[in-house]
Amino acid sequence: MPTPPESIKTGPFAGRTVAALGQDLREGRTTATELARQALDAVAGLDPALNAFVNVDPAGALEAARRADGELAGGTDRGPLHGIPVGVKDLIMVAGLPATMGSRHFSGYVPDHDAACVTRLRQAGAVIVGKTTTHEFAYGPTGDRSATGPSRNPWNPARMSGGSSGGSAAAVAAGMVPLALGTDTGGSVRIPSALCGIAGFKPAYDAIPSDGVFPLSRTLDHVGVLAGDARDCLLAYRCLTAQDGGHDGGQEACRARVAWLDPAGLFPGDSRVVRAVRAASGAEEEVRLPADAGGELRETYTTIQSCEAVAVHAGRLAGAPELFDSEVLDRLRAAADVPGRRYVRAMAARERLAPMIGELFGRHDVLALPAVPITAPLIGLRETVLDGEKIAVRAALLAFTSPWNVLGLPALTVPAGPVGGPVGGPVGGPVDGLPVGLQLVCRPGHEALLFEVAARLARS
Amino acid sequence: MPTPPESIKTGPFAGRTVAALGQDLREGRTTATELARQALDAVAGLDPALNAFVNVDPAGALEAARRADGELAGGTDRGPLHGIPVGVKDLIMVAGLPATMGSRHFSGYVPDHDAACVTRLRQAGAVIVGKTTTHEFAYGPTGDRSATGPSRNPWNPARMSGGSSGGSAAAVAAGMVPLALGTDTGGSVRIPSALCGIAGFKPAYDAIPSDGVFPLSRTLDHVGVLAGDARDCLLAYRCLTAQDGGHDGGQEACRARVAWLDPAGLFPGDSRVVRAVRAASGAEEEVRLPADAGGELRETYTTIQSCEAVAVHAGRLAGAPELFDSEVLDRLRAAADVPGRRYVRAMAARERLAPMIGELFGRHDVLALPAVPITAPLIGLRETVLDGEKIAVRAALLAFTSPWNVLGLPALTVPAGPVGGPVGGPVGGPVDGLPVGLQLVCRPGHEALLFEVAARLARS
Repeated sequence: MPTPPESIKTGPFAGRTVAALGQDLREGRTTATELARQALDAVAGLDPALNAFVNVDPAGALEAARRADGELAGGTDRGPLHGIPVGVKDLIMVAGLPATMGSRHFSGYVPDHDAACVTRLRQAGAVIVGKTTTHEFAYGPTGDRSATGPSRNPWNPARMSGGSSGGSAAAVAAGMVPLALGTDTGGSVRIPSALCGIAGFKPAYDAIPSDGVFPLSRTLDHVGVLAGDARDCLLAYRCLTAQDGGHDGGQEACRARVAWLDPAGLFPGDSRVVRAVRAASGAEEEVRLPADAGGELRETYTTIQSCEAVAVHAGRLAGAPELFDSEVLDRLRAAADVPGRRYVRAMAARERLAPMIGELFGRHDVLALPAVPITAPLIGLRETVLDGEKIAVRAALLAFTSPWNVLGLPALTVPAGPVGGPVGGPVGGPVDGLPVGLQLVCRPGHEALLFEVAARLARS
Repeated sequence: MPTPPESIKTGPFAGRTVAALGQDLREGRTTATELARQALDAVAGLDPALNAFVNVDPAGALEAARRADGELAGGTDRGPLHGIPVGVKDLIMVAGLPATMGSRHFSGYVPDHDAACVTRLRQAGAVIVGKTTTHEFAYGPTGDRSATGPSRNPWNPARMSGGSSGGSAAAVAAGMVPLALGTDTGGSVRIPSALCGIAGFKPAYDAIPSDGVFPLSRTLDHVGVLAGDARDCLLAYRCLTAQDGGHDGGQEACRARVAWLDPAGLFPGDSRVVRAVRAASGAEEEVRLPADAGGELRETYTTIQSCEAVAVHAGRLAGAPELFDSEVLDRLRAAADVPGRRYVRAMAARERLAPMIGELFGRHDVLALPAVPITAPLIGLRETVLDGEKIAVRAALLAFTSPWNVLGLPALTVPAGPVGGPVGGPVGGPVDGLPVGLQLVCRPGHEALLFEVAARLARS
């Protein structure tokens, strides 16, 4: 992965993959306990500047690490995540650790059960280091509204990490942990991954169970993973779905056919971002969305998310509105007025759009487009100018990712530049010295092809 | 079935079942052509007083009847509906016949395709006589608001047929046809069947496909059948689902365990109606809804139906509101304001209610309750007094039927009195000289038990 500029200190896991750490562990060059200590030290040293973590759990992490070491020494190997330090978004329940959802509504709340995905993490031998910052109730792609303050972008702490899984992305990008869990309702894994220059994978809808994850919008919510590269995402995804080639189809990872999906059908993009990502995709053919599909996807997403989010928060809106962040409160109140007939029509549009978009896959396995049309904005920015036109930052951040939540399709973002590529280089690398993400989308069951493309591009 | 008082003339099919007609046909005592002529003559004679039909199709009916006769003569027997005259609710498309949906919005509209259920009718050899009156867009259980006027109750034409499949019920009850198709979104087959003293069956959700049926509320809409007795409903249901013991489980129709479901948990009922139906049910055990479930079922039904109905009519509401019946327009406008968050919560409540109500079936196969808490009100009546309390007529009519649309459960209504029972008799018969309906509800797959109970009660 591209690493933040040297002016920003990074932690011990920057540029070290889960796969490589696993080899080091098994060949005796390190221990789970040492990795946990490195992670805890890195958080202590780096987090004051980045605010990636809401809570760390040194005792729990060191205990889990010791157990992992003991098991490995005793011949019990739980697989690729065994002994690996992991951050967990603070919207996902970890028994015994406070879960704030980024909100004052839940200050002091400590769940007594693990979320299903956390249970899987533990069964896979992973070491949970702590809980990562989330935009309040995951209701925002900017990552800068949380009861404990904004998470910050390791490439430039004045800039957004993106959100809502901003803490998870910042923690991985800064090398505090090699892997983190996030949630993705409209891009909340992929947006911060792209803005922070790491890989992020939102699987197919319901591929990773969401029990024990605080809901934002039930029919759009996905659990996903963030890591330094796509291969680590795949390792984690397989562990979380308890499969060895099951959900990802087990199909031959033959050479996938990639088409560039012209993102202009969805939203205007910074032409430098689009050019860099287009070049990185290596795609020779191009497809376009049917006319109006882009607008319909956006409207469908917004309507569904609005109604479902307000349904979750109706009690808090009525009972203690003052505890919400002011921007989140304003947005929820606006969403409360969306009429039911629009929700019903959005759900019907969703059914209509699925086969329409499915046709784009007719001659291709994977669609490629940018993860985000712009680079990381400054924290707090809500409007910006692109090609002389004002655009809304939130809408821009969500524009290329949310369609795949509406349709429930697997989508992966990987850093668009070659590893170690020139910062600020003209093609295939970061723009304005900031990372950009290449997003790859496939149909459920074709995940192996998605990761084959990512691996091929990483080698090239 | 109980037949209307002698002061009201009835047609040739009053008291004649589809099953008996089929025997007559096969044993040469009648022909399909003769049956079609009898139906057309009955409509010509009786319909001016009842307004059960919007449109009749003498040419089409006689042609279909001649074909049916030719096939039978040639040894081709399409089964129980072969040669049987049928009425089709004017919300269900019959190619080449006008379909008004009971609304001026569709005056002059002629569909060019049959609905899927009409295709099945034709394949089964049925003879379509014409289209029956529907409450405008099926949006009302009273059956008295339609572009072509109210359908009327054969037991007393000053009274409601009930709706929205009011024409189908009146046509069967008056003996104009032995069988009719209807739709049922909150009780639109069962309510008019009960008020008119015939049998009506709403199958499990989606058991009869709804392609080609104008929608009212997509997740609540069901296609159903109306006939003189339960056995004829079963014959028609089997033909419409192209099964011989498939959908209804093919299970042994052993003696079903019936429980009385105390209807007080849903809505107040006329005590004479409840007593008569309770006696007719023969149920020895009684179950009750969990506290609050009744209110939650009603609220869930109303919210889902409101939002889905307005989604269907948004364009007409904006473009030509003046073409709606004034009451339907007022109701749609009120429904347009229901917020999406309430719809989302209603859909969640629906998921929660399903297993809760499912538990009532723990020790019983069939739940029995009245189909409607009152007897047929006068046309136009919107409020009435029950035990000294004002009640809304629409809410009363829907109260005992709509829960089974929310849950998608099969529900059958049969006349509560023994066949030919005393009009106005104290127990088990009509109340105020008007019929009452016993409703039987089961789980999908247990339909055979439902019909076993109906058959047993009809014999007793």
